[in-house]
Amino acid sequence: MDQKKTPLFTKLYEHYQSSPHSFHVPGHKNGRVFLEEARSIYDNILQIDQTEISGLDDLHDAKGIIDEAQQLAAHLYDVLETNFLVGGSTVGNLAMMMTVADRGDRVFVQRNSHQSVFHGLELGGVKPVFLEPEWDNATGLALGVSRETLERAVAAYGDAKAVFLTHPTYEGYGQDLRDIIRVAHEAELCVCVDEAHGAHLIFDDGNGLWPQSSLKAGADIVVQSAHKMLPAMTMASFLHINSEKVDRVKVKNYLRMLQSSSPSYPLMASLDIARAYLGAMEKKDWDRITEKGNIWRAGLESGLSWRQSPRVIGNYVQDPLKLTFVTDEPGAAKEWKERLEEIGAFPELVSPHHLLLTLPLAADKMDEDRWIPLLNKILRLKKQQVSRQDDTMQRIERISELTYCYEEMKYLPVTSLNWEKTEGYVSAETITPYPPGIPLLLKGEKVKRHHLYTMKKLVQDGASFQTGTDWIKEGLTIFLEKGNDL
Amino acid sequence: MDQKKTPLFTKLYEHYQSSPHSFHVPGHKNGRVFLEEARSIYDNILQIDQTEISGLDDLHDAKGIIDEAQQLAAHLYDVLETNFLVGGSTVGNLAMMMTVADRGDRVFVQRNSHQSVFHGLELGGVKPVFLEPEWDNATGLALGVSRETLERAVAAYGDAKAVFLTHPTYEGYGQDLRDIIRVAHEAELCVCVDEAHGAHLIFDDGNGLWPQSSLKAGADIVVQSAHKMLPAMTMASFLHINSEKVDRVKVKNYLRMLQSSSPSYPLMASLDIARAYLGAMEKKDWDRITEKGNIWRAGLESGLSWRQSPRVIGNYVQDPLKLTFVTDEPGAAKEWKERLEEIGAFPELVSPHHLLLTLPLAADKMDEDRWIPLLNKILRLKKQQVSRQDDTMQRIERISELTYCYEEMKYLPVTSLNWEKTEGYVSAETITPYPPGIPLLLKGEKVKRHHLYTMKKLVQDGASFQTGTDWIKEGLTIFLEKGNDL
Repeated sequence: MDQKKTPLFTKLYEHYQSSPHSFHVPGHKNGRVFLEEARSIYDNILQIDQTEISGLDDLHDAKGIIDEAQQLAAHLYDVLETNFLVGGSTVGNLAMMMTVADRGDRVFVQRNSHQSVFHGLELGGVKPVFLEPEWDNATGLALGVSRETLERAVAAYGDAKAVFLTHPTYEGYGQDLRDIIRVAHEAELCVCVDEAHGAHLIFDDGNGLWPQSSLKAGADIVVQSAHKMLPAMTMASFLHINSEKVDRVKVKNYLRMLQSSSPSYPLMASLDIARAYLGAMEKKDWDRITEKGNIWRAGLESGLSWRQSPRVIGNYVQDPLKLTFVTDEPGAAKEWKERLEEIGAFPELVSPHHLLLTLPLAADKMDEDRWIPLLNKILRLKKQQVSRQDDTMQRIERISELTYCYEEMKYLPVTSLNWEKTEGYVSAETITPYPPGIPLLLKGEKVKRHHLYTMKKLVQDGASFQTGTDWIKEGLTIFLEKGNDL
Repeated sequence: MDQKKTPLFTKLYEHYQSSPHSFHVPGHKNGRVFLEEARSIYDNILQIDQTEISGLDDLHDAKGIIDEAQQLAAHLYDVLETNFLVGGSTVGNLAMMMTVADRGDRVFVQRNSHQSVFHGLELGGVKPVFLEPEWDNATGLALGVSRETLERAVAAYGDAKAVFLTHPTYEGYGQDLRDIIRVAHEAELCVCVDEAHGAHLIFDDGNGLWPQSSLKAGADIVVQSAHKMLPAMTMASFLHINSEKVDRVKVKNYLRMLQSSSPSYPLMASLDIARAYLGAMEKKDWDRITEKGNIWRAGLESGLSWRQSPRVIGNYVQDPLKLTFVTDEPGAAKEWKERLEEIGAFPELVSPHHLLLTLPLAADKMDEDRWIPLLNKILRLKKQQVSRQDDTMQRIERISELTYCYEEMKYLPVTSLNWEKTEGYVSAETITPYPPGIPLLLKGEKVKRHHLYTMKKLVQDGASFQTGTDWIKEGLTIFLEKGNDL
């Protein structure tokens, strides 16, 4: 198939060029009705912000240009079927969960998954067994689930239906998943991968310079944020079906339920565009990007109180487009971020102990000469060095369950308590620092010292949280039950 | 509050003007990385296709510009709280259902609701009692639920938690909901309204020229597609909370679960823009639009085989921005549509017996001089007149239930059968012609003659359906159970 073609975008563009008159929604009428002050930004995109009129197909019953665009994507990723998502990888993770697990089924879930995976558990009434990822002590970064952990889980829970993995991590670390997937398939598990950060990882000449795509490793169903590392609009994602194990009718049914019945054409067309962009890349483009990534990595020299996370940690290799700076100095990462923003450079993520930058998937847009010297200056902020208090690492069971199932939790009495005093209680809410959107403490999980330690660091650092309550000021909601009396 | 302000859009614009450098997602890096052929359309919008970096707030934890934009909307609509939706009214209807009804709860549902309301029932495991709307015999159009139907339902089912209404209809017909809402509130029902087609209906000087907003009538929670009748981007909607009856924390929790954790800024800012557009409208603007609507209505004279649906049907008044042409001639509506498209005019909806056009919310964009003569020509296509076969109208119970509950349906054996022979069987799939996206036959509903009659008309007419299977060619999936043997 000709990966240079963009059937969906091209048809939208042709429709616009025919100067059509809209007697249909949306109300902006191809941009004719709009707030004057916003025209300069919106005018062009509104020309293709269409609805399901003649010739423009229907995402939920694709037979024309959307079908063609999805098939081109499936061809590029070498999968059975690609579904375009307009609700982000969030909606993909929800649909994936509901497809592979019915109410009451058991599944294995990587504990540092994105919150949408946990939301899928809750909406679907699924029983999770959590698999703790490996951690790198030197950087404090979470990595992936080890084969050993999965083997132990399989031995302990013979009735699980699926395993949910995240690959690569937010910081771009990925392992060779083939061994793990073999273990999973031997146990008749469906392998579901949240590859939000890995939509670009299809180039692989076996040189180990890039993490490998989970699709090549044989995952059954994979969700990718095309907007994260590819040039698609935010909220545009792929859901790939990579094996006959997956019930495709069920996937489509859930996507129809969870996604808008008026999906955004600019978002869908941006998937067509991002796929064509990726499809047009050749080996020499990848080589140049890898080389530029190395120039960035080499150009940023570790300082007294900070270091760059290494390209390789154990079995894991980092995406050359991700740069992670780790520090033990309280407040340093936040200060880097502020200093970067002062000079107009906006980072992806700051946590109490690290800062993450993402580079463009375009060698000629890397701007290393401009930014590396500035970054080196900022990262070398001199501060008093403080030793790391690693009671965080006196951690965590490798395999764990929730104290209650989701249905039960709806009816249990709750109260709230100063969060610093909740050790040993079962939390009735999920605490999710954002970004990265990975829940720190789950609804139904017993509060441990390591939770409180991390919560304290994040609160001190002024991190953002997505929760329904103001738990910092008004107390954490906990379940009031036996062994948990106040 | 100053409704001319657009805090969200303005801040995004200012960020763009500061020429920021992106070390973050999305991968297009403020538009620097993109497919060349698509730049002319996307370049400007990508400047504001941002993520949750400093100063840009977070939809799921709104405290800054998004909060301010939502408050301006709440002020304009005179509600307790407005939530911006990036997943369309679909996600609003799902969240509304899950908020007001727990698993196993009973709710009343208008039978001609949008499919997303039925999806909410299924995802939430809620038990529906369907309320048949009133029908207009002269035009064959569905209208709203009558007060009498709700009273009968309340008398029959004392345990229902909520009632889901659609107002106005796709064709823009709305009734005065105050009486119905009074009945509902006396029965302690939470009143939930899918007002997808009515985001603009806040102007009301009591002259009865426009349908009244359900918010003014006292509905508790209301979802509106800002993209349908207001100038917002497709998939951008509002969820308004209009009474203390609604658990706002629960709403936010479900929205966080169902919506992308990377919500689209262009979509959110388009809500800010659409609200400012509406907020800037004055009485004289509404008067001019009403007047122009009347010019359209009056200018289109009924012909031999077609008529315009009237401005007033019983208690219902039609939105002046909607034009409905009804016909008894088989194939006529489809032919009108094709003839319109040949001259570059794209209608909103065609069904076997009617065509719907929507006009812009801007008096100076109505183009009546250009289009009315052309429309009159097209609508007067001469054809042999055929009398209407109205066994459709030998209808339908006013109040009905599903044969099985959703959880039960997951485990019942199914088979497929030539759809024309399924009368009396219970359907195992939902058949939804799109547009309008209102299910004709529901999963769990017994197939009646009127279903088959309408299905046949739609199939003959080449209508589009959103289903998981190819039921037309491969048979309709039905449940195999007692009294249903093949």
